[in-house]
Amino acid sequence: MTDVEVGRAKRARVAYSFDDVSLVPSRRTRDMELVNLNWKIDAYTFSHPIIAAPMDSVVSPESTKSFAAAGGLSILNLEGIWTRYEDPTPMLAEIAKLPIAEATRALQRIYSEPIKGELITRRISELRDQGYTVAGSLSPQRTAQFAQDVVKAGVDIFVIRGTTVSAEHVSEGGDVLNLKEFIYKLDVPVIVGGCATYTAALHLMRTGAAGVLVGFGGGAAHTTRDVLGVRVPMASAVADVAAARRDYMDESGGRYVSVIADGSMGRSGDVAKAIALGADAVVVGSAFARATDAPGQGRHWGLEATHPDLPRGEMVELGTAGTLSEILSGPSHTADGTMNLIGALRRAMATCGYQDLKEFQRCEVVVTPN
Amino acid sequence: MTDVEVGRAKRARVAYSFDDVSLVPSRRTRDMELVNLNWKIDAYTFSHPIIAAPMDSVVSPESTKSFAAAGGLSILNLEGIWTRYEDPTPMLAEIAKLPIAEATRALQRIYSEPIKGELITRRISELRDQGYTVAGSLSPQRTAQFAQDVVKAGVDIFVIRGTTVSAEHVSEGGDVLNLKEFIYKLDVPVIVGGCATYTAALHLMRTGAAGVLVGFGGGAAHTTRDVLGVRVPMASAVADVAAARRDYMDESGGRYVSVIADGSMGRSGDVAKAIALGADAVVVGSAFARATDAPGQGRHWGLEATHPDLPRGEMVELGTAGTLSEILSGPSHTADGTMNLIGALRRAMATCGYQDLKEFQRCEVVVTPN
Amino acid sequence: MTDVEVGRAKRARVAYSFDDVSLVPSRRTRDMELVNLNWKIDAYTFSHPIIAAPMDSVVSPESTKSFAAAGGLSILNLEGIWTRYEDPTPMLAEIAKLPIAEATRALQRIYSEPIKGELITRRISELRDQGYTVAGSLSPQRTAQFAQDVVKAGVDIFVIRGTTVSAEHVSEGGDVLNLKEFIYKLDVPVIVGGCATYTAALHLMRTGAAGVLVGFGGGAAHTTRDVLGVRVPMASAVADVAAARRDYMDESGGRYVSVIADGSMGRSGDVAKAIALGADAVVVGSAFARATDAPGQGRHWGLEATHPDLPRGEMVELGTAGTLSEILSGPSHTADGTMNLIGALRRAMATCGYQDLKEFQRCEVVVTPN
Amino acid sequence: MTDVEVGRAKRARVAYSFDDVSLVPSRRTRDMELVNLNWKIDAYTFSHPIIAAPMDSVVSPESTKSFAAAGGLSILNLEGIWTRYEDPTPMLAEIAKLPIAEATRALQRIYSEPIKGELITRRISELRDQGYTVAGSLSPQRTAQFAQDVVKAGVDIFVIRGTTVSAEHVSEGGDVLNLKEFIYKLDVPVIVGGCATYTAALHLMRTGAAGVLVGFGGGAAHTTRDVLGVRVPMASAVADVAAARRDYMDESGGRYVSVIADGSMGRSGDVAKAIALGADAVVVGSAFARATDAPGQGRHWGLEATHPDLPRGEMVELGTAGTLSEILSGPSHTADGTMNLIGALRRAMATCGYQDLKEFQRCEVVVTPN
Repeated sequence: MTDVEVGRAKRARVAYSFDDVSLVPSRRTRDMELVNLNWKIDAYTFSHPIIAAPMDSVVSPESTKSFAAAGGLSILNLEGIWTRYEDPTPMLAEIAKLPIAEATRALQRIYSEPIKGELITRRISELRDQGYTVAGSLSPQRTAQFAQDVVKAGVDIFVIRGTTVSAEHVSEGGDVLNLKEFIYKLDVPVIVGGCATYTAALHLMRTGAAGVLVGFGGGAAHTTRDVLGVRVPMASAVADVAAARRDYMDESGGRYVSVIADGSMGRSGDVAKAIALGADAVVVGSAFARATDAPGQGRHWGLEATHPDLPRGEMVELGTAGTLSEILSGPSHTADGTMNLIGALRRAMATCGYQDLKEFQRCEVVVTPN
Repeated sequence: MTDVEVGRAKRARVAYSFDDVSLVPSRRTRDMELVNLNWKIDAYTFSHPIIAAPMDSVVSPESTKSFAAAGGLSILNLEGIWTRYEDPTPMLAEIAKLPIAEATRALQRIYSEPIKGELITRRISELRDQGYTVAGSLSPQRTAQFAQDVVKAGVDIFVIRGTTVSAEHVSEGGDVLNLKEFIYKLDVPVIVGGCATYTAALHLMRTGAAGVLVGFGGGAAHTTRDVLGVRVPMASAVADVAAARRDYMDESGGRYVSVIADGSMGRSGDVAKAIALGADAVVVGSAFARATDAPGQGRHWGLEATHPDLPRGEMVELGTAGTLSEILSGPSHTADGTMNLIGALRRAMATCGYQDLKEFQRCEVVVTPN
Repeated sequence: MTDVEVGRAKRARVAYSFDDVSLVPSRRTRDMELVNLNWKIDAYTFSHPIIAAPMDSVVSPESTKSFAAAGGLSILNLEGIWTRYEDPTPMLAEIAKLPIAEATRALQRIYSEPIKGELITRRISELRDQGYTVAGSLSPQRTAQFAQDVVKAGVDIFVIRGTTVSAEHVSEGGDVLNLKEFIYKLDVPVIVGGCATYTAALHLMRTGAAGVLVGFGGGAAHTTRDVLGVRVPMASAVADVAAARRDYMDESGGRYVSVIADGSMGRSGDVAKAIALGADAVVVGSAFARATDAPGQGRHWGLEATHPDLPRGEMVELGTAGTLSEILSGPSHTADGTMNLIGALRRAMATCGYQDLKEFQRCEVVVTPN
Repeated sequence: MTDVEVGRAKRARVAYSFDDVSLVPSRRTRDMELVNLNWKIDAYTFSHPIIAAPMDSVVSPESTKSFAAAGGLSILNLEGIWTRYEDPTPMLAEIAKLPIAEATRALQRIYSEPIKGELITRRISELRDQGYTVAGSLSPQRTAQFAQDVVKAGVDIFVIRGTTVSAEHVSEGGDVLNLKEFIYKLDVPVIVGGCATYTAALHLMRTGAAGVLVGFGGGAAHTTRDVLGVRVPMASAVADVAAARRDYMDESGGRYVSVIADGSMGRSGDVAKAIALGADAVVVGSAFARATDAPGQGRHWGLEATHPDLPRGEMVELGTAGTLSEILSGPSHTADGTMNLIGALRRAMATCGYQDLKEFQRCEVVVTPN
């Protein structure tokens, strides 16, 4: 990245967000029918690269069906409301009616209920019964404790997801995750993150992960920047980690790790930008939380909003825009980039002249100052 | 353009919008009477370079008279409401009263009526009867289907206009436009676009076009950036395509192709900036939609807002400012750059010290960071 | 200035506004009592460098007394309301009550009354009777016509002020001003502008002017940028023209021309910035229009807002903050930089550690990106 | 810093605010329990580096207990309301109810009461009785007059704090502070500032100060930028002064002067940024003014807001968020970075992978354009 001097004792790279960049069509255009959106990770192929985020406002054992029906992957949060409560329906109903000003305290209370290993097992089993690819996520802090429950229950794809996940966690306690060892022993492919830099991503790739999550996982409502001061704008983070994928492929003699952008993709245009900047797939939260049949019923929150001492996100009221199916595949009746995400990605690639996701990663971009 | 590193795997040029640049007077000033605004394309000379956009809120068989009376060119959209309905008056009346929140769905419904070849013929014939230069536009998708109707009916200037039009469209279907061949066979001059880069424009120039449209044709209300992630800020796009004109003139042994900025010119100052950055003419939409005698009656929408699956624009309520004649030539009674477009361009050139459009393209500009 | 490529056919310098820069204290501080604010032009010395703008909302034959009492210069607009009407009091009263939405049309009507030579003579004579330094302004368009009236009536300082005034105005008519000849023949010192670049300023200095106005004279309410696209941010303009002063002093063998920033100084901090960037004096409008005893009574407009065909400014409602004396010298009871302009400039210089205006022009500045 | 040309006669460095930069996690993460927040100055060690600002809305003889209980330092303003009034309780009650629009005039009136030497003595003695580290501040203008009272009363840490404090104050009067001599003679460690540049800080360090304050001390409500035009964005100022600390340590043969960021840290993320940019400690105002048990009761003002002739700050209504203890150490029930400042700093360091404050100063940062 471009280097500037903040002051005599500190230099900094300039980093860009999705809003700072735009896509530039090439000298070719292409029929939409000729665009191929397939995304492959390990043995699994999906008909598009848009993953539903492991957030309780988006993915429930019920809503996973809609995502699978559209050919995509969704991830159930195994530390969320579905593994804390036998029947979380009353809690979801309460959340849907919370006065926004009281939301943080209420979420802190609702999520103070402990996670139960047997509920993890049961939810995964419910997902298995649907017959689709099953993916569930844990934070690195909980992975050591619950990983066995998850694996025994039989997930297809295991996701370790936190604000920042590193391959080298320094700890005094005994209960800590050795990522490399853990992934090596596991039979299922692992997706791990967030990370935001070339170096952190390269180390995560070396653990044997099938995919890395780029970004701090924060949705439309996270405030990590305000509370911790920590932020790497997504356009630069994705383009940096894409370089780690290339270099790791070289050093590993050909292992291709999926780079998965996670967070800050509120509109369909952001999904296209993420791919064009080098991502293989994207994790989307808020756009799906707007679905009439999403568990959040128009409200959206992440686990970081429920932290007992230091919440780092807010519940936001997004309203509803259409069904999950309409948000994924249209038809759209709004021009703000919140519906028909798959159609919009296809059209962006056709307009810019690219055939598949891998080719689209070469798309030219411009940086716009304002 | 200036090059920056977005991340290790992606570099980007920095691109500027009209808002990012301003004009700098030279050391000379000039009487307004000494400024010549003539614009010439093929055999046609107009007394100013401001073209009315092929949008149903701006150009109708009736409103073309006002534009012609002021010495300028207007383009009828041959895929718009006038070629879908024998008498679109009731639809325009309905649109004028639509609740804004319901506009997209209503436009999708109204524009689902098919385009009729015979209405294309009739509208062009109505225009011919007025005795002025006749210009009509089709999208590249429809050009193969309806071009014969258009040519037979006798347009003077044929416009092929889409979000992105390339000289190399990749397609499996048989019904696709070979631009170079099409233009070669046609007896009338062709204006074609949008495009936004040096390379794309150079290829369009090589098709034999008399003019290229720079920009994605989006008006005040288009959301291509949000929905597709695609955008090239206009100041950079115009200055890039102006270089293609120069280089194409060299490679073709002297063919001069008009560079026509299309979109994002909401105020008269933007028109002046477009010329100063290298445009020969400009296509204006929203400013004319504000006319009391424009078909939109203060509302403004583009065809992209009517797409059945993925609308990429919104109908906007602009209100009215004066008659088409006042918006073109004044007198203005507002200081916001929405009236007396021709007078404002003339004064900008006089203030900066330039005599004609070609000379004004050399005007110095500054980039302003905020 | 820093150079960037807008597009392949156009490069541009980056230019900064007062908002983009801030002053940096040196390693010294200084007692306020040790700061000297004297400004000298030709034979006239003023006890501070803040000039009241030739705008009808600011300077009237009555309000000039307050400015003179505080040791400063004010300029009467000799094309304004005082030379169009024998008694403009009713018009000022009408303007004070205009609904803002109707202001432009009303100002166009009120200012359609012709300027009278004998009223020019009378106003100057009224000013002479007050016993202070008399300054009056004409636009370059009117200077040839009325200059004799002005000179015969006996101004001390003659101001030629327009949006852009060049030393080389190209014209076919006979009634045009040859600036160099005009200034040479005149017995009184001339201040001339606006200009905004090194080259334009250098040519104005070569006409023999005692001072040049930097900026386009637009006040808080001008819209030249929107209407004409013309703008040079003031920080860069002042720093550029200061270099012309230095180079002209060299080429002329020692003639020192005052560089006078004119426009965009809405707060006292902007006045300090203008000096620190190289200005010798500043012309202030809106801050004085907020005075309870200013002719505008809290409303503010410039001549450009009254243009019959193409108004390029708006009347703005500023409200009132205190008397002219309080706005100039305090005490201030607000922290927004609109009162005690002289005290604020003195304190800025003391805080930064500088003794007089000339020394303060060396003050370090930083550019702040947002 | 990066250098740009503002205009031909002026160059400027580009300077960044806390909002312009963000922290980048390293490739390691760390348990929160392994993070050490200790800050040491002279003989005093505090369990965290967050100092309560010498502002009457934040620190009173009563509120100092809460800060000490949490292991931190607070500074009583010895020119504030507690040394002007024997019992300021009625004034604080009046301030808490002032209509915001009348606040400046009321503060000017309340603070026109003179400072009394015997009240300085009494307040310090009250603080001593609490048994914690006692710190009090004077402005450089008052230091000569009241320093003896302060020292005799027995402060542990003496703070000289003004908008800009230089080691070389130029004055004609006799009553001026020779900083170097003053500090040399004093038995207690001195913290002195504000300053904002490498050079100014280096000169302050050479006076023998134990710590320098970086920034102009302005809180959420100061308007020095608008009134004086003076501003150095904090991120650049801190990184510049950190370089002065390093160079002074070299030139002095090992004396380590604390760099203390003072101002513009409205959220916990800003505290983390200040340390990461090179600060050893931070002075926080507005966050504490939000405490239910702060003297301001949700309102916040600095001494600069009380200046009789040229107020340079405003009283702001912040509202209340929790107790001082909750704001310092949580638990937080809001996600906006205003509560649990210590927990947030600890988590930022753990997330980024750093162990103590000194190590955290090496944290990578990025500059974000928007």
